[in-house]
Amino acid sequence: MENTLVRDRLAQLRQRMAREGLSAYLAADADYHGSEYVGEHFKTRTFLSGFTGSAGVLLVLPETAGLWTDSRYWLQAERELAGTGIDLFRIGEKETPLLRQYLKDQLPEGGRLGFDGRTLSGAYCQELRKHWTGGTLCPELDLPGEFWADRPPLPHAPAFLLDESCTGRSASDKLTQLRQELAREKADVFLLTALDDLAWLFNLRGGDVAYNPVLLAYAAVTPERAMLFTERAKLSAELLASLESLGAEVLPYDGIYDFCGQIESGCRVLLDHRYVNERLCAGLTDRGAELLRRPNPTALWKSVKNETERENMRQVHRLDGVALTKWLYRVKKEVGKTPLTECSVGALADDLRREQGAIGPSFATIAGYGPHGAVVHYEATAETDVPLEPKGLLLLDSGGQYRRGTTDVTRTVALGPVTEEQRRHVTLVLRGMLDLAAAVFPAGTRAEQLEAIALLPLWSAGPDYGHGTGHGVGCFLCVHESPVTLRQQPRYGWDGVLRPGMVLSDEPGYYAAGSHGVRQENLLLVVPAEREGYLRFEHLTLAPFDRDAIDPLLLGQEGCRRLDAYHRRVYEALAEHLTAEEAAWLREATKPLEPEGDSR
Amino acid sequence: MENTLVRDRLAQLRQRMAREGLSAYLAADADYHGSEYVGEHFKTRTFLSGFTGSAGVLLVLPETAGLWTDSRYWLQAERELAGTGIDLFRIGEKETPLLRQYLKDQLPEGGRLGFDGRTLSGAYCQELRKHWTGGTLCPELDLPGEFWADRPPLPHAPAFLLDESCTGRSASDKLTQLRQELAREKADVFLLTALDDLAWLFNLRGGDVAYNPVLLAYAAVTPERAMLFTERAKLSAELLASLESLGAEVLPYDGIYDFCGQIESGCRVLLDHRYVNERLCAGLTDRGAELLRRPNPTALWKSVKNETERENMRQVHRLDGVALTKWLYRVKKEVGKTPLTECSVGALADDLRREQGAIGPSFATIAGYGPHGAVVHYEATAETDVPLEPKGLLLLDSGGQYRRGTTDVTRTVALGPVTEEQRRHVTLVLRGMLDLAAAVFPAGTRAEQLEAIALLPLWSAGPDYGHGTGHGVGCFLCVHESPVTLRQQPRYGWDGVLRPGMVLSDEPGYYAAGSHGVRQENLLLVVPAEREGYLRFEHLTLAPFDRDAIDPLLLGQEGCRRLDAYHRRVYEALAEHLTAEEAAWLREATKPLEPEGDSR
Repeated sequence: MENTLVRDRLAQLRQRMAREGLSAYLAADADYHGSEYVGEHFKTRTFLSGFTGSAGVLLVLPETAGLWTDSRYWLQAERELAGTGIDLFRIGEKETPLLRQYLKDQLPEGGRLGFDGRTLSGAYCQELRKHWTGGTLCPELDLPGEFWADRPPLPHAPAFLLDESCTGRSASDKLTQLRQELAREKADVFLLTALDDLAWLFNLRGGDVAYNPVLLAYAAVTPERAMLFTERAKLSAELLASLESLGAEVLPYDGIYDFCGQIESGCRVLLDHRYVNERLCAGLTDRGAELLRRPNPTALWKSVKNETERENMRQVHRLDGVALTKWLYRVKKEVGKTPLTECSVGALADDLRREQGAIGPSFATIAGYGPHGAVVHYEATAETDVPLEPKGLLLLDSGGQYRRGTTDVTRTVALGPVTEEQRRHVTLVLRGMLDLAAAVFPAGTRAEQLEAIALLPLWSAGPDYGHGTGHGVGCFLCVHESPVTLRQQPRYGWDGVLRPGMVLSDEPGYYAAGSHGVRQENLLLVVPAEREGYLRFEHLTLAPFDRDAIDPLLLGQEGCRRLDAYHRRVYEALAEHLTAEEAAWLREATKPLEPEGDSR
Repeated sequence: MENTLVRDRLAQLRQRMAREGLSAYLAADADYHGSEYVGEHFKTRTFLSGFTGSAGVLLVLPETAGLWTDSRYWLQAERELAGTGIDLFRIGEKETPLLRQYLKDQLPEGGRLGFDGRTLSGAYCQELRKHWTGGTLCPELDLPGEFWADRPPLPHAPAFLLDESCTGRSASDKLTQLRQELAREKADVFLLTALDDLAWLFNLRGGDVAYNPVLLAYAAVTPERAMLFTERAKLSAELLASLESLGAEVLPYDGIYDFCGQIESGCRVLLDHRYVNERLCAGLTDRGAELLRRPNPTALWKSVKNETERENMRQVHRLDGVALTKWLYRVKKEVGKTPLTECSVGALADDLRREQGAIGPSFATIAGYGPHGAVVHYEATAETDVPLEPKGLLLLDSGGQYRRGTTDVTRTVALGPVTEEQRRHVTLVLRGMLDLAAAVFPAGTRAEQLEAIALLPLWSAGPDYGHGTGHGVGCFLCVHESPVTLRQQPRYGWDGVLRPGMVLSDEPGYYAAGSHGVRQENLLLVVPAEREGYLRFEHLTLAPFDRDAIDPLLLGQEGCRRLDAYHRRVYEALAEHLTAEEAAWLREATKPLEPEGDSR
């Protein structure tokens, strides 16, 4: 059956492509800032193709069209692209050409590739240009925008000031540090378009992006001026006053393009072209500016939480632990008695967090029961939702945004009897998690030196989990915060050295496709160890691990001791904030696995 | 008091420097191949300065002279340089200029620096040239050789063939692989001057270098020719026949310089300029050759031991284990009853190895008692030797060269009562060693990802040990074999990926200056794990660890199990080769720490 809606839209696009003399048009679902979560206004690819997956680009040629996406989305894409005439290009399959190779092969010499340059990064287009030299990029063309009648508007949530009791540091202080960096780099302008760095720099937050409490805005900082390009109507009076006292100018959101259009030739512009979009980068290059392509210096500063932020993170993790403990108590008690589903327990987690003061979840809650637990980025929908039965494993990966911090925690819970294999996997994952968290290491140690500690128990048991062991986490900012990461991959903008104040997740997993999935995740704060010159981790996350799913023999004596010590902390921190019934349950749930005073 | 001998030699050198119009002369103790151990013939710096340390260079100017050496040798250099007029430059101290900076500062514009270009690598001189652009290098000048009357002759030990029961692979097969590599690199000549790679390639061994069973020789391989430049008189009849059947030509040792002097302009020469000396490199460059500076391809091939070599290594480690067990038995039994010293027990270890068939030690045996154990590269001499008392810790790091393999093992032994602190350190070091050896990891894992496993128990206890955790080991070749290494440092010529057949040492340590030193070292062989796609280590070394110095509680349940399993293997492998008395002792020494059948 033909998908007339999509075919009609592609026809309209092709009319306009012909008018502009384009050989092809490229569309992605992406905002103008490279954000992880993309608002409806920006979902051009979805609008044109009907494919709703969160990754994939659409290339439309006069006669044909192709969608490139990775294996996570192949099934969905096959279904959603049926009848559209769009070919599916399965990224990762041997015979699939890379998009840039396809451009080379299919576009005529001297061809023109159109796209909305605000939705692709300067770095992406630099790569494209390097490999496809036979034609021209035309980044000024938002063609779908011309006929997208019911396009959702740009988000317009109010933005607000975070005071120093939250941020621990004034925006003025941060600006001073930034200007010192500009002087060091001999840069005339710093262009900042990454929304979380911008929010951090100005001590502001917003609600324009799902899960990330940020504001749609651009910023430009020079030795004399600080400019914030955003819709003034969004700014609270308090925030406006604060910006004024900072000497910052508020200019229209689109004003950044005018500003960059007036940059003088030879002007040295510091920017991170992985985030700054192509329309800005190309515009600056056209004006003759010299681009200093560097990681945003703000990114690394932001990753090292100051004393106030550290204390705030501890505080919100107690609140979050209360919410999660209540959730565990409810789910363990009610399963098999009350009807529960993945969706209902996911919603319950979100609700319990809100009761503790969370503004909302820090990402889409993952509640995966049984085989769904093995789907790493599973998000239960009305179609996939399943009832929970009093057996097997439920994986809950969830987090909250609080005014003083961000949380992210995963627990794998036995809803009733579990198989020996499941117990083995839960235990080995937990063991790796606890082993890494217990590491003491000399200052100067790089994160990737430590990752194997978390992997080791799993490596003896079975395949690797195929995702990194950890990621940086913001403080009332993005739950996945660059540049900190705990994986064996090239880093960008970070030497990998763990510094006191950095926050990262510790989340090994094990996924048995079609059967069950296991992940155990705590957030860790890097803190000085007792010994001079050494560092260690502090568990920020405070919530019990399900003892019912653990094999103490396999966890080992040391693992048991680590778990018992952690559980002691959890109980002491949370009990007073629970009902008597919940506290009693928690006492049982955190009972030592190892008999007290027992020694080898 | 003036050191007239040295002053006289420097005066003779300066006369010749003036004759040659030199602004300075540089001397090092180094052979023409970059070998780790340097023969007496090559100790020019020692001859000129009187300083006998194993690291350091001497720079002589018309009026002054300086010796650069690192902190290990400062005390010794101060003593040995007294009265010579040579200034000591302490490498590592802030105010000490680098040699190349000193040349910049002290030599006149257009100055000439003389040296024997055979004793410095092409890479070293390339760096020197890059940083000191104000003058000329003159690498043709062995000035001390002109007046060194009693210079020891070049070594002239006989060389011999290793048959395929030792090498597992014919030289002809290796040459074929090498020529394929030459074709791949489009190289006309491969110049090989690293003595162990050369020995590996031609399946020959010699006795020209201390501890390393290699022959002084150069080699050049082209698609048609294979040339071995060495003294024909050293070659056994069998070896000559084998070289002939291989189509290899034997040419005089110095003939390599003639050969390179006839290379045609544009000729592509593959060489590793970290090993190929400057006289050769400069000569080739002067002739207009194109140098393809690469790690010797032979190095990585050599590092992956074939099936025969693996089995041979296992075999010699059983012999070596017998020797070391006899040593442990004797030392533990006799200490406090018979007079023992560091030197005597070191010699005993060497003797016991010879009884098991070793040709000699694989490096200078380190027997460090008490505070001497904390001196990482300690070598007992008549002056430093101390008697052993029935208390405290003795560290023995030793190894043997056998016709079928090379060993390297360290044990830290309690000679009687030890302090709680000593016991703690011994246990933590052993634990790290065993933890690393027990790792199972996916193929593709890099060595440096795993190093932290060995360090982890120590990191909680105290300072890092300041040396790498492990090094590659040859098969009847160098005990320190490039490029395999287990440390956080840039590698050269190796991607760091552990491959089945690689052999490396696992040797964490702990050094309490002025009190005691601990190191525990086994050699490990990388082998496939049971699980497809995974690898693990096999302990090659078979010798007991001293249970008397171990705290089972601190070793932990898992550590105890690992030690017990290892000790079971040791006893089973060695008992039948020991006297009844020794075997009975070994049974006690390898008794499980953990009661059988005990669980958790």
